[in-house]
Amino acid sequence: MPTRTSPTLGVGILGYAGVARAHLNALKKLPYIFWPAPVHFRLVGVAGRSPNGVDETVRRYGFEYGTTDWRRLVEDREIQLFINCAPNDQHADPCLCAAEAGKHLLCEKPLGRDSREAKRLWEGVRRRRIHHQVSFNYRFIPAVRLAREMIQAGELGDLVHFRMRYTDDSLSNPDTHHTWRQEKRRAGSGVVGDLASHVLDLGRFLVGGLRSVCGLSRIVVDRRSAAPGSRRRKPVDVEDLYVGAVEFAAGAVGTLEASTFCPGQKNYLTFEANGSRGSVRFNLERLNELEVFHAEPQARRDRGFKTVLVTDRDHPFGGRWWPPGHILGWEHTFVHQLAHLTQAIAGDGRVTPLAADFHDGYLNAQACDALLVAARTGRRVRLK
Amino acid sequence: MPTRTSPTLGVGILGYAGVARAHLNALKKLPYIFWPAPVHFRLVGVAGRSPNGVDETVRRYGFEYGTTDWRRLVEDREIQLFINCAPNDQHADPCLCAAEAGKHLLCEKPLGRDSREAKRLWEGVRRRRIHHQVSFNYRFIPAVRLAREMIQAGELGDLVHFRMRYTDDSLSNPDTHHTWRQEKRRAGSGVVGDLASHVLDLGRFLVGGLRSVCGLSRIVVDRRSAAPGSRRRKPVDVEDLYVGAVEFAAGAVGTLEASTFCPGQKNYLTFEANGSRGSVRFNLERLNELEVFHAEPQARRDRGFKTVLVTDRDHPFGGRWWPPGHILGWEHTFVHQLAHLTQAIAGDGRVTPLAADFHDGYLNAQACDALLVAARTGRRVRLK
Amino acid sequence: MPTRTSPTLGVGILGYAGVARAHLNALKKLPYIFWPAPVHFRLVGVAGRSPNGVDETVRRYGFEYGTTDWRRLVEDREIQLFINCAPNDQHADPCLCAAEAGKHLLCEKPLGRDSREAKRLWEGVRRRRIHHQVSFNYRFIPAVRLAREMIQAGELGDLVHFRMRYTDDSLSNPDTHHTWRQEKRRAGSGVVGDLASHVLDLGRFLVGGLRSVCGLSRIVVDRRSAAPGSRRRKPVDVEDLYVGAVEFAAGAVGTLEASTFCPGQKNYLTFEANGSRGSVRFNLERLNELEVFHAEPQARRDRGFKTVLVTDRDHPFGGRWWPPGHILGWEHTFVHQLAHLTQAIAGDGRVTPLAADFHDGYLNAQACDALLVAARTGRRVRLK
Amino acid sequence: MPTRTSPTLGVGILGYAGVARAHLNALKKLPYIFWPAPVHFRLVGVAGRSPNGVDETVRRYGFEYGTTDWRRLVEDREIQLFINCAPNDQHADPCLCAAEAGKHLLCEKPLGRDSREAKRLWEGVRRRRIHHQVSFNYRFIPAVRLAREMIQAGELGDLVHFRMRYTDDSLSNPDTHHTWRQEKRRAGSGVVGDLASHVLDLGRFLVGGLRSVCGLSRIVVDRRSAAPGSRRRKPVDVEDLYVGAVEFAAGAVGTLEASTFCPGQKNYLTFEANGSRGSVRFNLERLNELEVFHAEPQARRDRGFKTVLVTDRDHPFGGRWWPPGHILGWEHTFVHQLAHLTQAIAGDGRVTPLAADFHDGYLNAQACDALLVAARTGRRVRLK
Repeated sequence: MPTRTSPTLGVGILGYAGVARAHLNALKKLPYIFWPAPVHFRLVGVAGRSPNGVDETVRRYGFEYGTTDWRRLVEDREIQLFINCAPNDQHADPCLCAAEAGKHLLCEKPLGRDSREAKRLWEGVRRRRIHHQVSFNYRFIPAVRLAREMIQAGELGDLVHFRMRYTDDSLSNPDTHHTWRQEKRRAGSGVVGDLASHVLDLGRFLVGGLRSVCGLSRIVVDRRSAAPGSRRRKPVDVEDLYVGAVEFAAGAVGTLEASTFCPGQKNYLTFEANGSRGSVRFNLERLNELEVFHAEPQARRDRGFKTVLVTDRDHPFGGRWWPPGHILGWEHTFVHQLAHLTQAIAGDGRVTPLAADFHDGYLNAQACDALLVAARTGRRVRLK
Repeated sequence: MPTRTSPTLGVGILGYAGVARAHLNALKKLPYIFWPAPVHFRLVGVAGRSPNGVDETVRRYGFEYGTTDWRRLVEDREIQLFINCAPNDQHADPCLCAAEAGKHLLCEKPLGRDSREAKRLWEGVRRRRIHHQVSFNYRFIPAVRLAREMIQAGELGDLVHFRMRYTDDSLSNPDTHHTWRQEKRRAGSGVVGDLASHVLDLGRFLVGGLRSVCGLSRIVVDRRSAAPGSRRRKPVDVEDLYVGAVEFAAGAVGTLEASTFCPGQKNYLTFEANGSRGSVRFNLERLNELEVFHAEPQARRDRGFKTVLVTDRDHPFGGRWWPPGHILGWEHTFVHQLAHLTQAIAGDGRVTPLAADFHDGYLNAQACDALLVAARTGRRVRLK
Repeated sequence: MPTRTSPTLGVGILGYAGVARAHLNALKKLPYIFWPAPVHFRLVGVAGRSPNGVDETVRRYGFEYGTTDWRRLVEDREIQLFINCAPNDQHADPCLCAAEAGKHLLCEKPLGRDSREAKRLWEGVRRRRIHHQVSFNYRFIPAVRLAREMIQAGELGDLVHFRMRYTDDSLSNPDTHHTWRQEKRRAGSGVVGDLASHVLDLGRFLVGGLRSVCGLSRIVVDRRSAAPGSRRRKPVDVEDLYVGAVEFAAGAVGTLEASTFCPGQKNYLTFEANGSRGSVRFNLERLNELEVFHAEPQARRDRGFKTVLVTDRDHPFGGRWWPPGHILGWEHTFVHQLAHLTQAIAGDGRVTPLAADFHDGYLNAQACDALLVAARTGRRVRLK
Repeated sequence: MPTRTSPTLGVGILGYAGVARAHLNALKKLPYIFWPAPVHFRLVGVAGRSPNGVDETVRRYGFEYGTTDWRRLVEDREIQLFINCAPNDQHADPCLCAAEAGKHLLCEKPLGRDSREAKRLWEGVRRRRIHHQVSFNYRFIPAVRLAREMIQAGELGDLVHFRMRYTDDSLSNPDTHHTWRQEKRRAGSGVVGDLASHVLDLGRFLVGGLRSVCGLSRIVVDRRSAAPGSRRRKPVDVEDLYVGAVEFAAGAVGTLEASTFCPGQKNYLTFEANGSRGSVRFNLERLNELEVFHAEPQARRDRGFKTVLVTDRDHPFGGRWWPPGHILGWEHTFVHQLAHLTQAIAGDGRVTPLAADFHDGYLNAQACDALLVAARTGRRVRLK
């Protein structure tokens, strides 16, 4: 419950399963964790395909209504913030309609199925007086934020390497069934849009824009059962993995990987930066930790990577949660992200814009497209 | 929001800062995470010493009222569950009054300042038709639960070793100021009741009761400033650290440690079990992981500790939260603990009682007392 | 001291500093570690540029003579094994002369400065009745050998990914002075021949030949002081780093990296393989360990990477050295490599040829050349 | 081969299997690794029980003769250094005879089967002009040496904790057969003399003498087959494990453990020191690394344990071996130890005495005895 003076923000959400649950959780937690909250949430409406699912979500989270038609949300004047957690092929229309209706936007990644669609989205919001954010939630990990502050302060010196990787084993079993993510028409791309997009955004957040990419992709399993247990097979027409090398405009180079065929990895997003003065390493499966190395002339017993548990009061987001050493989980990134958005909406001028907006989402889509072109042509592709 | 049929459970809480915030968070999250929830929480009242703090808590979490007098809570018939997060010297009276009033209890650890007080608490609840739980929340870590299931299934064979340790660096700076925890009259003991109690309870949960203890304790810094910045010094009359060796009734032996003087450790609760068939290791700073070794005749490439990320759907508490590899944090243990309590209260007969009740709390206090006697006398102390 | 029947093998070595010391150490240790040794070493001659250095080496290791002219070694009929540890531009002539004189060869990597030179070397030995080996000593790490046995036995299933990396921080300080390794004329290439060659050979050893490569390289510091403390600057005309993506003929794909600009890394050769049935990971800085994951349907508590300490008696090279857990170091790889070569020379027909011979060295040089072409052209380069 | 001026040191060794092989290896390597060597080894004689084993050792390592009677060695005037690798019950007589004959001594640990025997040994050497060393080889690990230098320089401040542990799984299989180590008459004690002695010596080396000990021991498997495959069972009359707590004279306290019943551990000697200014951690299975934490007021990104790879040129023993990051193994500790001894023998006055001499061995035995008394009596035992 916010202070009396905090404005009310009516929220509508499209989708309730999967990652939507993390957004719903953030809506519930933000008010008492970021206290006093800059806005007061009113959970107005939820939309989704299944009437039952929608109904349950209404009761579970306390929405005022549910609907199977997202248009009701975008037309509802009580809603000021529209959160889009639908599959990729339903990002554009709902978001553009909501934008036209003047609603603030928080859209799941990737923004569009390709850079053309993402551009349309960006162009649809850029001149409106709304806040628009793509849910690249990993910008809001304390350890990632600490890495950024170090890089920006020059503590790593001139960056030479930046490696990025997001791998898991979610599809390494060939019996895992087909979903919309394996369908180009709906998803746009495979691991490039789903996983590589996340690390590309982190690269942008930490190092800046790309100059060129090269690499190759593969469809490892090209047909999957249509549904759990089904004998019907549906073709897979998007890539299962990508391996490549990238060059940043600022000069750093590095490898880039995305794959769902890495047995033993569950949520293995890692990055590593090496600069003239030091290095940092990060792994999402241990997201509370940042490994830091400083190269400065130093005593013999100081030459090693430090494993910093980024939970102290003076660490990013420190003091909002629990005492030092009492670790956070994956879900907290969504709370931080939503806090950032609501602070912006509430007009707190002191807020440095750290989230990915639709322009970042568009540039991200450009990079994804370039990866696919590079894989197809076997050539290094330059980004504009 | 629960289903229509779920009963309403009025909650009163004593305390709002420190660990109370983790209980408050659990109260807010449980309803939508453990859906459909077995009970519907009604946040009735919060008590605490500061009128301002109480007021803010009312608004922040949505309580019906706040008070500086805990008696109002225990007398309030709308409250069925009383959560006690007060300092150790305020566990007994409020809990006993609440018990007398028929309220279910969730009390912070240690249950009493010594075993005599803990016994009084246990005797005050044992014949009442109430649920009473001591907040040994680490029983509710998925990895701890997995370890227990393995041990109970005999997967480690006969246990030979069980080591326990809870260390941090919270007091290693001599300038850190005095609190009630450094005062025997209020806290009962130092690290023994504060930290050792946690691992003693885990030992009990995983291995069973103790047969004997020996060891030694120290007050490292015997005077601290009365308050931040104050020049006035208050004496410290409780132990800053404990090192010892213990013997379990079932035969296993191990070391036991608790200390606030370990630079670089923030929340370093670790245990390690070695049995005739295998070993497990755990570290609270990486609470999503369990290290597992199986000793059975095995192929050459299988002889190593496995680092299991305990986040799969078929892991304990799996499926309640996020996809595999999307890690949980410290706070989640409180949600699991509260879920367990409310399931018991709601009368779900299928619930195996896995929480620590006041009897466990009393036995824990006995073990704590024995540690202190052993340190004082220099003798191995047997537990009854 | 070998058994009476073991033949004597006269050894001549070109070079005595740097990596030559590891070969000299292997010559001294092999006789009593691989007992009974298949051959009896006679340390005949050492050649090098500095008369003092050569003299000291004679006395230090017990050679019969030293010389500043390598031709004396290749002409000496008492020498049957010629070990070439000279800079890259002195691999070809000495090796070819020694081959012509019928001597067995152990040549440091890379075999030649480019694939043309390496081909000349390969063609110079292929029809002779001599054993010729390139010192890709990392094939002889127990953990690497275990990984190979697992892959060959199909324990990882069909390989999907193979990542390779060899990075250190040896040149990240711009004040580090120039050596022959920064000179294309003498070294042939920079990190590609020096570091990438090692992991390319491991890729070949573990996965097989390459189909294509793409990537990019950089000269980060293009002028260095001519010598320690010197103000004179010499240009650097070879690459300081390489990042790329590769495709194996057998289907697996992966990233490839080599760099001397990674602060905090000293000898960071890592590889990781992911297949349909499992994964392995390796890091040369912890060379006694292999991390292994098996994906087969398995119990909940088995789903994690195992850290296998590859020192058991039934591990590769186990039983030759110390009890389990008593780790080996970097130098041991050279002993294993030399043991392999001498077993082959002694005519032990049971020896599976596991070392890299000059043909492997030539293919390795082809891959190195392809990397450089890919970097220069921005195109994926196919290997024949 | 040493310089002309280096004196010759005739060496006799009792024992050739087990740990003797590490001493033999050191004798072979020292001359060229620590070049120019302060002495020239002459491998005079080896003694042991099996004529065949002795003969093979003569040929394998190049001794002048072998014998089954150790008295021949101690009587041989060509021998100036006597290395005793026999079982514990054969430490006293051979060493005392050799001392009487004026030979320098390097004796395996524990020095005697109990403190009485160790005292006899110490008294037998203390007034003689000989160098006497107990093979507590772990003092010669670079990372241990670095830890010592840090502690001595006050970099950890006042030590509060020092934990010690040496555990493996060598006997956790009940089918493992009986050896002399399970026989009190021959070994003196079980894991206390075999494993605890090592960490007690490290404690002494790093922190100083003990003030008191308490703890308990166990015989887990009290009968074992007399030999591999034998059905005859021999009783085990020494302890399989020890767990305890210790207090150092200087004030620090800590746990102490030794056990052969820890599945998954092979050579798991670990220690950890916490002081007012920092902490260090060490693990013998990763003996090239030292984990270091500094508590001083420090920037947010510096608060973590550093994993220092102790292989740089300015690290202890750095520059003697290979380039940074090229790790050493277990055997190297014996080379360092022997180098230290020979420098002392050669009369290099600059050598700080860092090895354990027989006085240290005697104090070590006192500590071992105290542990056993504490276990038997259930009381804290003070050391004089």
